This record gives sequence, C-alpha cells and structure tokens, in this order.
Amino acid sequence: MPNPTAAMLVIGDEILSGRTRDANMHYLAGELTRTGVDLRELRVISDDADAIVAAVQALSAAHDVVFTSGGIGPTHDDITADNVARAFGRSIGVREDARAVLAAHYAARDLELNDARLRMARIPEGATLIENPISAAPGFTLENVHVMAGVPTIFQAMVASVLPTITGGAPVLSQSVDVARGEGDIAGPLRSLSERYPDLSFGSYPYMRGGAYGVNIVVRGSDGARVDAAMAELAAMVGA
Amino acid sequence: MPNPTAAMLVIGDEILSGRTRDANMHYLAGELTRTGVDLRELRVISDDADAIVAAVQALSAAHDVVFTSGGIGPTHDDITADNVARAFGRSIGVREDARAVLAAHYAARDLELNDARLRMARIPEGATLIENPISAAPGFTLENVHVMAGVPTIFQAMVASVLPTITGGAPVLSQSVDVARGEGDIAGPLRSLSERYPDLSFGSYPYMRGGAYGVNIVVRGSDGARVDAAMAELAAMVGA
Repeated sequence: MPNPTAAMLVIGDEILSGRTRDANMHYLAGELTRTGVDLRELRVISDDADAIVAAVQALSAAHDVVFTSGGIGPTHDDITADNVARAFGRSIGVREDARAVLAAHYAARDLELNDARLRMARIPEGATLIENPISAAPGFTLENVHVMAGVPTIFQAMVASVLPTITGGAPVLSQSVDVARGEGDIAGPLRSLSERYPDLSFGSYPYMRGGAYGVNIVVRGSDGARVDAAMAELAAMVGA
Repeated sequence: MPNPTAAMLVIGDEILSGRTRDANMHYLAGELTRTGVDLRELRVISDDADAIVAAVQALSAAHDVVFTSGGIGPTHDDITADNVARAFGRSIGVREDARAVLAAHYAARDLELNDARLRMARIPEGATLIENPISAAPGFTLENVHVMAGVPTIFQAMVASVLPTITGGAPVLSQSVDVARGEGDIAGPLRSLSERYPDLSFGSYPYMRGGAYGVNIVVRGSDGARVDAAMAELAAMVGA
C-alpha cells in the first residue's frame, strides 16, 4: 500500500514579507518522513479569507491529510478557524469545552478571559480539539485537516499529539554520498542507475563550497536492502 | 496603483523530505518587499511533471509575476524546463545561444559538454535567457514566469538580473515594537487601531522566550508618515 500523502499550509504574512524564516515546515517535513507519510506540497499564503478557503479546499481534496500552522491566536488577523469552517460549510462558535480549558488556564495566572482571548475558543462544528500543553488555546481537526498554532514550540507540541493518530506507511530510509565533482559529470550514470532501481528515488543536490563544485546524492526508499544495493553501485560508480 | 503581486514556486524533493531547509524563499521574500512587489504565495512541490504544470498554470494566472527555483540542472530529476514549456503549450529544444554559453564555459575548464550538460541548453520556444554568472547554465523567462536555479548563490545572482526588469510599486516600510505581554492583552486595542488605519497592515507575532510570553507588533505601509502616526499611537497604547 502506498504511503499516505500530506500537504502543509502555512498561514500568515510574516514569512511572505521576509520578516521571519519559517521553522515549522522544516520540522514537520522531518517528522512526516520518519512517520512514513509523503509530504507532497507546502504552501504559504497570507491572512486572506478567500485564499485560506481556496487552499484548504484544494489541499484537502488532493491529499490524505493536511496540516495548517498559524492564524489561530486572539488578534484581528487570526482568521484561520473561521475560514477552515467556511471551507467545509460548517458553522463556528465558542465551544464550551474549549472555553473551559481557557478559563482554567487564565484563572490560574490571574489573567482575564477577555473577548479577544475568547476568540480562541471558537471551534467549527464537528471538529475534534488538539491539546495545547503550552498556552492552552487548542487547535482542532476538521475532516482531514489539522489546524495548529504558528508559534514553533506550540506547533511542535500539537504535531506530537496528532501524529500518533495518523497511520503512516513504511518510513522512508535514506543514504547519501558526497561527490567532489560537477553534477554534469555524474548525471548520465546516475540516470541509468535510477532506471534500474525504479522503486527508489535518487536526488542529486549540487552545491558550491569554497569555489569548488560538488554534489550530494541521496538515495531514498522503504526497503533497506535495496537502498544498500543501490548505494554500493553508486559508490563504485563515483569511485568513493 | 496597487503593487504588482507575485508567487514563488520551489521545485524539488529535498525540502519536502526535511533534508534541506529552504533559503531561497526567505531571500526572495526580502528582495521583493524592498522592490515593492507583494509576494502573495509560496509553494513547494516535488519533481513531478503534472504537479509542475498545474502549479505554473495556476500561479501564472493568479499573479503578475512568478519565480521558480530548482530543477534546471543536468540530472534525470531536472524536469522544470520541459514542464514550464508544457504549461504554456510551447515546444522545447537545445537553443544555439544557450549551447554556445555552455560550450565556452566548459571548454575554459577542460570539461566535456556531454549529453547531460547539454540538457541545460534546452529552452522553451519564445523564452528570454536569464544570465548565470556563476555556472553558466542559464535560467529563462517565459510569459510572466522566471525560471531560476535552486543552488542559493546562483538563484541570488539570477534574481539580481531579473528584478531590475520588474516595475515595482512603492516599497513597503515597516516598524515594529516588542511588547512583554500576552497577545490576548493587546488584541482588543490593536484591532481598534487597525480599523482606524485601514491603509496599513498590523501584524502581531507572539513568541515565548525563557518561559515568558511576548508579542512583536509590526506596522507596514507605503506611506511613512502614516506608519509613524500609527506607531506613536501604538507606543502610547502599550505603554512603551
């Protein structure tokens, strides 16, 4: 059975403006590879209602599972929950269990559960809550979409709650070899190797370091013996 | 006149597998903000022919300008040029001016212009070349899509050639203030401020540092006097 496929949708202006460099995409990509879920697409969009609805609908239809990050806080630009609800034609409102979690959290800290904070208890009809062990305000799962916070520590804690609920396939194993030659020198033999191992994927990542060209070749697959065999041929090929 | 809109498409498996953390998106985002181009969407997809065609068509139709990175090297997984051609219904083949650039580059280095390297001279019908001062193999512009290399140094050099050809709008100015309070404390006043300055954008970026909550508030707009005025009100509001 092929591995399930996934997409991630990052919602917020901070990455698009160049202000912030995203950390959540890289984190989730690594976790999904370990879990045996094929991450096929990443998208970053701004805090725009129609853009969120369109992206959630497109990604949810095209993939087995979708992860979102960002836009579920208390401020005016936090519009993710409302538009995920809209993408699936669901109603949304303050939910009692989410309100109780927030009330307990803020009471323990002598902080007011004001209108802004109460927005974080707005949960679409039919969603399941995702626990937030750090700052209480929950994420949620609606259909095949997991809606999570953008703050990296909270995002990571939510991913840890969600991943055990996903049935992954065989984890993808990878091995790599670094070759101090131009990519064009090894492209021909690499293509013929990849044709003889159609069950594996061969990535070729050129780089320049100290003015010299090199290429990192990565072999990936779920069958460790096949990856070993391809790596042995590859090592002979490049003289490593 | 509103600023032109842009999207970026990153093509390649290395970011989706978690192996590499992308640098080109962050770089381009900063350059476009300085140029007065609104980056609205980032997408990362794998080396999949149909995914490339679909993404190029969707982004090219939705935005004024599209930038791609990755997949234009000499190896079997470099399929960007062929599929950008396909997205626009153009033919593709080795072009004489691109071949000449490569021939000169490799001759000067005593390297063979083999079949794999010659793939990098395949250019869609009607495209304009983008110079590559580092490793010679050109990018190209077809319609409103700029097709560039994935290696960061080469990507940056190509962006530097392309940006002067794009008519940007007013550069977006930004100022920020760091507030050592929870986001929920300032969300209400921030919303009312944003409603009084509809021409500006107000971003609110919560963080946790050493166990304490804080929030970085960023005010963006193209009119410096308006940004100053909003920042003054904001400073009074948060007691900074």
